[in-house]
Amino acid sequence: MSQLKHRLHEIIFEADSPAGKTFDLLLIVCILASVLVVMLDSVGSYQARFGRVFLTVEWVFTALFTIEYILRLYCVGKPWKYAFSFFGVVDLLSILPTYLSLFIPGTQYLLVIRTLRTIRIWRILKLAQYLHEWDYILKAMRASVRKIVVFLVVVVTLVVILGSAMYMIESEETGFTSIPRSIYWAIVTVTTVGYGDIAPRSDLGQMLAALAMILGYAIIAVPTGIVTVELGQARKEVSTQACPECSREGHDPDAKHCKFCGAQL
Amino acid sequence: MSQLKHRLHEIIFEADSPAGKTFDLLLIVCILASVLVVMLDSVGSYQARFGRVFLTVEWVFTALFTIEYILRLYCVGKPWKYAFSFFGVVDLLSILPTYLSLFIPGTQYLLVIRTLRTIRIWRILKLAQYLHEWDYILKAMRASVRKIVVFLVVVVTLVVILGSAMYMIESEETGFTSIPRSIYWAIVTVTTVGYGDIAPRSDLGQMLAALAMILGYAIIAVPTGIVTVELGQARKEVSTQACPECSREGHDPDAKHCKFCGAQL
Amino acid sequence: MSQLKHRLHEIIFEADSPAGKTFDLLLIVCILASVLVVMLDSVGSYQARFGRVFLTVEWVFTALFTIEYILRLYCVGKPWKYAFSFFGVVDLLSILPTYLSLFIPGTQYLLVIRTLRTIRIWRILKLAQYLHEWDYILKAMRASVRKIVVFLVVVVTLVVILGSAMYMIESEETGFTSIPRSIYWAIVTVTTVGYGDIAPRSDLGQMLAALAMILGYAIIAVPTGIVTVELGQARKEVSTQACPECSREGHDPDAKHCKFCGAQL
Amino acid sequence: MSQLKHRLHEIIFEADSPAGKTFDLLLIVCILASVLVVMLDSVGSYQARFGRVFLTVEWVFTALFTIEYILRLYCVGKPWKYAFSFFGVVDLLSILPTYLSLFIPGTQYLLVIRTLRTIRIWRILKLAQYLHEWDYILKAMRASVRKIVVFLVVVVTLVVILGSAMYMIESEETGFTSIPRSIYWAIVTVTTVGYGDIAPRSDLGQMLAALAMILGYAIIAVPTGIVTVELGQARKEVSTQACPECSREGHDPDAKHCKFCGAQL
Repeated sequence: MSQLKHRLHEIIFEADSPAGKTFDLLLIVCILASVLVVMLDSVGSYQARFGRVFLTVEWVFTALFTIEYILRLYCVGKPWKYAFSFFGVVDLLSILPTYLSLFIPGTQYLLVIRTLRTIRIWRILKLAQYLHEWDYILKAMRASVRKIVVFLVVVVTLVVILGSAMYMIESEETGFTSIPRSIYWAIVTVTTVGYGDIAPRSDLGQMLAALAMILGYAIIAVPTGIVTVELGQARKEVSTQACPECSREGHDPDAKHCKFCGAQL
Repeated sequence: MSQLKHRLHEIIFEADSPAGKTFDLLLIVCILASVLVVMLDSVGSYQARFGRVFLTVEWVFTALFTIEYILRLYCVGKPWKYAFSFFGVVDLLSILPTYLSLFIPGTQYLLVIRTLRTIRIWRILKLAQYLHEWDYILKAMRASVRKIVVFLVVVVTLVVILGSAMYMIESEETGFTSIPRSIYWAIVTVTTVGYGDIAPRSDLGQMLAALAMILGYAIIAVPTGIVTVELGQARKEVSTQACPECSREGHDPDAKHCKFCGAQL
Repeated sequence: MSQLKHRLHEIIFEADSPAGKTFDLLLIVCILASVLVVMLDSVGSYQARFGRVFLTVEWVFTALFTIEYILRLYCVGKPWKYAFSFFGVVDLLSILPTYLSLFIPGTQYLLVIRTLRTIRIWRILKLAQYLHEWDYILKAMRASVRKIVVFLVVVVTLVVILGSAMYMIESEETGFTSIPRSIYWAIVTVTTVGYGDIAPRSDLGQMLAALAMILGYAIIAVPTGIVTVELGQARKEVSTQACPECSREGHDPDAKHCKFCGAQL
Repeated sequence: MSQLKHRLHEIIFEADSPAGKTFDLLLIVCILASVLVVMLDSVGSYQARFGRVFLTVEWVFTALFTIEYILRLYCVGKPWKYAFSFFGVVDLLSILPTYLSLFIPGTQYLLVIRTLRTIRIWRILKLAQYLHEWDYILKAMRASVRKIVVFLVVVVTLVVILGSAMYMIESEETGFTSIPRSIYWAIVTVTTVGYGDIAPRSDLGQMLAALAMILGYAIIAVPTGIVTVELGQARKEVSTQACPECSREGHDPDAKHCKFCGAQL
């Protein structure tokens, strides 16, 4: 029994053995296929023609994912810990909406929750051994997060004031019907998305908008700079040897002595 | 008396004590709520239904901010210095428009000035101890400012010439009705915002626009590069203590021993 | 015979001799001219007036490219290896569509395949000795590829969920007619392209869109950071000769003496 | 006489003396004012009302610039060298169109050439002593130019193929009327400008466009990375001491020996 559990764990949770790799590959194909079905199901013409097929396929995938979820709960060491982990919740959210659709008629909203199962493909990173790269990006993002928060506070303030000013300057006909909508315009502009559904038409409005864009041109550089510097830092730290005495890492490439205990590297 | 002053200063201006933190938190909630009210007040349908509520809430917040402003003036060491400091002026601008609206009928413009109080949430940075990150970004921005000014002078020249050329090439029907408007288009294009409210339709115009975009693609790199380099520089300088033995610099912020000779820092 | 082959190889495949340079230059002019003809041929008014001229010119270029292709096959050491190499296939695809158009009436699709011959101008890099720069960029791109894949997996997931949510929130009239189309909108938004053909109009939709843009503002920084760091790394590695005396690395490409001990490199 | 010449040169060409600074400042005010007049002159309603005033002001400025141009020719050491230098040509182009408008009736085109005088404000950089920053950016741009050319060749190829494919996929009604226009769309998309005047509407077209955007998301990183690395390099080189023996610069911050002659720094 315990051996079966161990074997299952190896197949389902790990990707080192051939069986584990095959399982992960099959799983990812199933996930992508099921997300594709959800997508196609939302297209009116396909829904009309293949609605029944989609429903059947959806139930087959749900059955498969349910079996997988139960097996995961069964073979994992601490079932509750898995159940409340990020991937545990996502796994549950992948199957729940289909069952709920039996009791709740409006399946519209449940359809959307089903697409959350796309997140499950992040497991592909484990398969392709991209976890190292994932850690690298995550590390840099974590180091950047406080600086980017500061930056965002500044941008939000700027966008609120810019939006309010445009609400005052532009007439309602051009789309600036309220301050929240004007702030929406300001965000669309400063992030250089620029839909054009709302655009200033008065001379003063266009002047202010032009100023905002040129400033935004310089502002867009800040988060890029922050992340680049932290990525550069994270890359340096990745490739360094551990100290032979205190075993701590993070030494510079040109370091000759451990920066923590002073021992020779 | 002096003790009350001191205690008030601690609560209102500092964020080290629990009372100070609570005050700052309450203040920020009030600021955000009052800005939200100003925003909702500008939406036609809400204004029609809740206009009276908004007015009452606005007066309550104004009263609170007025008391806060007076207390700040009272407990600070040099009241005039505070009154003319950046935050002092912003604090005053947060309450003045509401009082002025009693005498001046057109509240439209005053509505907008009220959103300036959003700037007050920058105090949140003090609360969350993000001041270090703020200094870091500010340092890099200050080091970049001269280089970005040079860059902007070049971009402005480019945009004026590009706009003028397009005014000549494109007919008035496509939106290029004057040189200032064509320059507005050029700015919208070079910054990659691209509303599409004005867009070239002639062959020559589209060719020139395409050229401008591809060039702009390379140009956008310059401010990003400048800020990135300065951010990298600022990050390095954060911790430039020299080794007391070999006098070499470039140690990490967490270093305890010189990485070159192993001496204690 | 073998000497003719050798001489031809020198002219056609290499760019060191004056004849080789002239050949490459002529070839690039021909390629650009033939691509220009394909382009102009697709413009209705030009096609009506100069259709016959375009056809003649196209056949002349095809004849020239065919001769060139045969000569390449003839003079290269291993003809099969060339035929199945990247440039070999592109060279064949440059002439095949014109011949096929004799047998297949709908030339529309063949027209487009002809533009693939644009790729052949990459040979210009050999001529202008830009191969070093090409290698440099390629090296950095190769080092970035795994990190960017991880990043893209995250972005794709984000875009699928964002698109699905908007499909749920926005009504069909505003263009969000299906999940795939909503995902298309999400991609247009997160990449800051922002056509505006589909744009949220409801309050909730605009709020979510604004959030997506501000997040995207920080996200866009990641690939830029990755590539920048790798380009910086590639630039450093270009010249990593170690000092023969002190064995230390990190010398500049133009260094003649070790910057640490002064020994000759 | 020679002393007058010398004095004039000091005032007109240099910005060290108070008189020189005042002259440069006045000149820049005149340039900006005259460009403003050209801009306003192109606005229909202003032209109708103030056309005569604009004409008078334009002639006054032209007279002033003519005197300035003659004085420059007079006091400079080598008049011909100045006349054919970049700024010499720009200075001439600033006055020529107004005189030509006496003989040629269609002043439309001449109006535009007049805006070229905006380039003259680059002289402001000399005044504000921003030349160092200008050199810094220029140096990095020069070092980047070959790499960016390689990058542009790749982007151009990509854009041609993408445009041709979209021309094939999309029907003419959506704006993809010819290959050149489709290439224009491709450039608008890949550079993330995204006007939306031409946008794919078919499923396949939107899929290809989405792919192009996500790829473009990674591609946009390359020129930014190149320029950032070169700016970082240029910054390093700026701050280094010259070798006491061979006087050459460009040593690394941690260098102890000259990398050219091996002497101690």
